[in-house]
Amino acid sequence: MFKGIGASSGIAMGPAYVIPAWDWEFPDKMVDATDLSFEFERLYDGIRSSKDELEHIKQEIRDVLGQEQSYIFDAHLAILEDPVFMNEIQGIISRQYKAAEVAVKEVIDKFVEMFDVLDDDYMKERAMDIKDVGNRLLKHLLGSGDDTPPPTDHSYVLVAKELTPSQLVHLDPARVLGIVTMMGGLTSHTSIMSRAMGIPFVLGLEGKLIRPIQNGDLMIVDGEEGIVYVNPDSGTVELYESRKTDWLMHRERLQEIAHVPSMTQDRKQVRLAANISSIKEIDQVLKNGAVGVGLFRSEFLYMDRDSLPDEEEQTEVYKQAAVKLDGRPLIIRTLDIGGDKKLDYLPLQVEENPALGCRAIRISLDRRELFKTQLRAILRASHFGQVKLMYPMISSLGELREANALLAEAKQELKSRGKPFNPDIEVGLTIEVPGAALIADVLAKEVDFFSIGTNDLIQFVLAVDRMNDSIAHLYNPYHPAVIRLLKLTIDAAKAAGIPVAVCGEFAGDIRALPLWLGLGIEELSMSVQLILPIKHRLLTSNHAECERLLQEVLQCGTSEEIEQVLRQADSRSSAS
Amino acid sequence: MFKGIGASSGIAMGPAYVIPAWDWEFPDKMVDATDLSFEFERLYDGIRSSKDELEHIKQEIRDVLGQEQSYIFDAHLAILEDPVFMNEIQGIISRQYKAAEVAVKEVIDKFVEMFDVLDDDYMKERAMDIKDVGNRLLKHLLGSGDDTPPPTDHSYVLVAKELTPSQLVHLDPARVLGIVTMMGGLTSHTSIMSRAMGIPFVLGLEGKLIRPIQNGDLMIVDGEEGIVYVNPDSGTVELYESRKTDWLMHRERLQEIAHVPSMTQDRKQVRLAANISSIKEIDQVLKNGAVGVGLFRSEFLYMDRDSLPDEEEQTEVYKQAAVKLDGRPLIIRTLDIGGDKKLDYLPLQVEENPALGCRAIRISLDRRELFKTQLRAILRASHFGQVKLMYPMISSLGELREANALLAEAKQELKSRGKPFNPDIEVGLTIEVPGAALIADVLAKEVDFFSIGTNDLIQFVLAVDRMNDSIAHLYNPYHPAVIRLLKLTIDAAKAAGIPVAVCGEFAGDIRALPLWLGLGIEELSMSVQLILPIKHRLLTSNHAECERLLQEVLQCGTSEEIEQVLRQADSRSSAS
Repeated sequence: MFKGIGASSGIAMGPAYVIPAWDWEFPDKMVDATDLSFEFERLYDGIRSSKDELEHIKQEIRDVLGQEQSYIFDAHLAILEDPVFMNEIQGIISRQYKAAEVAVKEVIDKFVEMFDVLDDDYMKERAMDIKDVGNRLLKHLLGSGDDTPPPTDHSYVLVAKELTPSQLVHLDPARVLGIVTMMGGLTSHTSIMSRAMGIPFVLGLEGKLIRPIQNGDLMIVDGEEGIVYVNPDSGTVELYESRKTDWLMHRERLQEIAHVPSMTQDRKQVRLAANISSIKEIDQVLKNGAVGVGLFRSEFLYMDRDSLPDEEEQTEVYKQAAVKLDGRPLIIRTLDIGGDKKLDYLPLQVEENPALGCRAIRISLDRRELFKTQLRAILRASHFGQVKLMYPMISSLGELREANALLAEAKQELKSRGKPFNPDIEVGLTIEVPGAALIADVLAKEVDFFSIGTNDLIQFVLAVDRMNDSIAHLYNPYHPAVIRLLKLTIDAAKAAGIPVAVCGEFAGDIRALPLWLGLGIEELSMSVQLILPIKHRLLTSNHAECERLLQEVLQCGTSEEIEQVLRQADSRSSAS
Repeated sequence: MFKGIGASSGIAMGPAYVIPAWDWEFPDKMVDATDLSFEFERLYDGIRSSKDELEHIKQEIRDVLGQEQSYIFDAHLAILEDPVFMNEIQGIISRQYKAAEVAVKEVIDKFVEMFDVLDDDYMKERAMDIKDVGNRLLKHLLGSGDDTPPPTDHSYVLVAKELTPSQLVHLDPARVLGIVTMMGGLTSHTSIMSRAMGIPFVLGLEGKLIRPIQNGDLMIVDGEEGIVYVNPDSGTVELYESRKTDWLMHRERLQEIAHVPSMTQDRKQVRLAANISSIKEIDQVLKNGAVGVGLFRSEFLYMDRDSLPDEEEQTEVYKQAAVKLDGRPLIIRTLDIGGDKKLDYLPLQVEENPALGCRAIRISLDRRELFKTQLRAILRASHFGQVKLMYPMISSLGELREANALLAEAKQELKSRGKPFNPDIEVGLTIEVPGAALIADVLAKEVDFFSIGTNDLIQFVLAVDRMNDSIAHLYNPYHPAVIRLLKLTIDAAKAAGIPVAVCGEFAGDIRALPLWLGLGIEELSMSVQLILPIKHRLLTSNHAECERLLQEVLQCGTSEEIEQVLRQADSRSSAS
């Protein structure tokens, strides 16, 4: 038995498949001065191919695991576009006359060594990213990979010195029972992905094994406890067989509550809806008993292509979604690009602070034809189901009115073209700019609903970029300022008599459910895979108790106190 | 008489000095393949020299005009670091075998043409910046400039086709009576600088002159009306002699109110303090009758050098400032770097969104020795005057307590070293993160004062990077959410019985004064040159009226309505 760190919970048992470390060997090749430009071309070609491949992987991940997970590959794309990284490589080629692959290898090694020396988890993760990207680039420069194919005839526990997200993605997830690595950290992209894929994962075994694990060794991976067994005795196997059964049964039992009414013990109804990025996810939405789609991220329609989708194409997709949902609500958020989401064919200005830049509704109000095309498509789909429209990133009443004026034009245009649509389509907006939350009472008078986008809202309220790992610890949804602003928004919506939902990640945080109940939220929208765990908790919650709890929370001055109050309430309710 | 656009008000009269357009002529030189790396070296050397020169200019500007103006040159530095710009140049060298200067010229011309074609003021300004930077780079590559020296024996009205900020900076401001240019826009860096320097400026005369202006032509520049006269008749000269006298007298008259009590007509006192970035500015602080320094930006001590300033050096500077202020308050804000402010010798991580990144107090709490060194220096200076301490970017009570714990350690260290300091030094924080404003009541219990930093606060509340020109129109201090959050903060401070000041740019916005009075602000801190104009307005204001006005403002749902209410009140009070 070896103790590591549990990176993704669950139990796995099966034979080991050990993947060799990516390692490139080639001579320290020099080039003639006259071939320099040829080497540069090779480098640029390699970069281009690597980027194409990464874009492709990103798309695959998005379809399988949803948008959030695909962002991981943006970090890799960013490295390929990093001027410091590229200047180093170009410098070695042009000044030392070395071949492109030699230059790439030298720069990777140098960066990895530099980052590894610093005893800092964050930097180690970045080193891993650079290594991953560098290996991909080398593969393209050398024209071959050395990936040893995994077994295709049986499932296995994956064992590796370290595992990059790319390597994980290229394996068939159905065959990977569990993962064990020597290196890696809890916040690494590989850890995050394994959790999203539901694969048990234990890492950090470096220096703890007595002998290297061999292909075929029987492995037990206990992701909950962070324990790994190599060739365990029969008693341990028996024990874990039964633990594994319990774990799988818990997963199945959740499925049983999919279609029971979604309410607390004291009969307070809370609608659970889904956030989706593709119509492929709708089957899961229905299977998990969601009331509908609370956030349809229309961006995916615009991504991974060469030009804007036209009105017909968009109408078709929105209509398909509406029909598939069969009368259940479908809230389509208009194009939310900019910030960290880019379209190749729609070049946006390079911005110093893209999160505070020209994005979402700001782009739509700037490019009116693009926006109106989307509005017409959404309107046309509204003829086929319960379609609602939602504007992202509204920060003032002026913007809302501008957007609504364009909506009126779009309606007029469809009318004169004789296209049917729901003239009373409901229109809402996401509350994600603190300024919008602070004037929620004013905005509520001119929309049909709110949906609170907690990801951005918290980011702006606390002035913390949640993607910036060096300050990620300051991004705390339980900050009292966040709770106060949420209360203000929700109270304003209730006073105006319009529904208010929550659609950010905070909505799917199981610890936050008592807060939402206390605040009087009646709809939460989240990733499809979170709906049943949240519902499980909801069914055993007590609304009146949560309202009392909220009063306690509102007295707290720090996030630590708030988390403490919630933990105590949780252990009280578990004990009772 | 020719009508252009008034870019900076005031009246100037004097002989023309026409500066020739910067224009480089050189052969389309090619290089051998073997010389490619030499060309790259030349390019890198040129870039390095250009950067050094820009850093130097930046420093000069900061000393003369203050920090805000020096940011202009950050845009130029950013261009030299822009990967797109550099890749284009490197590409022409490595693929077309052209000399570095030829490549630079081609890329500048291409960008300028591209930007000029778009009929967009913002893009035209950026084209001007690129031209300016490109010319600087060419000067370094070709080893000589073609700047014709201006007259040194008399003052003059500067006439140019277009004028870059660099060109303006290199002239002796005392000799430049006024400026006339054919091209340029109101938002150009040159316009902004001329306003800061108080030089009348008319631009946009392209195509309006009958014949080119010659050196020595008698010029009249009326920046208020946007009018230029070339060789006017004696009647016009006489008229403008008297207008010029009026204008100069108004400037002088302001000086007369420097030392009268700073209060409204109904005797409500408002303390006016100064924001400074250098002790050189303290003379002006005293001359303009400020009550003291409301914001001492300690960053300048850390900039333009090769290593951190040690405790002795910092103590000396803070002490000098305290002594010069002779008992008046001196609020020293601890190091506020990160975001758009960098130190060469303290490499910070490259961040996707630096404004939401590791900056200000976040860096200080991360680098405790650096922070404690500064705290000890401030404490030691507190022995010599009314020194107060202010933490920037606090977003939670936890951070405040962490900072205060380090302050306690610093005090203990000085005590054991026997260094005198004021043990009861007042400690405050800037309210510039919306989260801090929302928990102002909680924070107020553990500090001695607040100072509201409106620049960042507004930026985060509205999720708008104010330096991003493409969305700058969304950065509106009069947004009702901003006013509500200010009120909340101010009310919380008053309830807790601690003083609250405002130190962002909004504090020096003359249109906002009635708001501050209505909100009950008792201290405003601003750039030295704004103190007297604001005081002039204050002396004729009525506090009770402003309180009534605020009630009207709080009913408004949009910034347009708020600005309208303020405009109406302004015209009522002018009429009465």
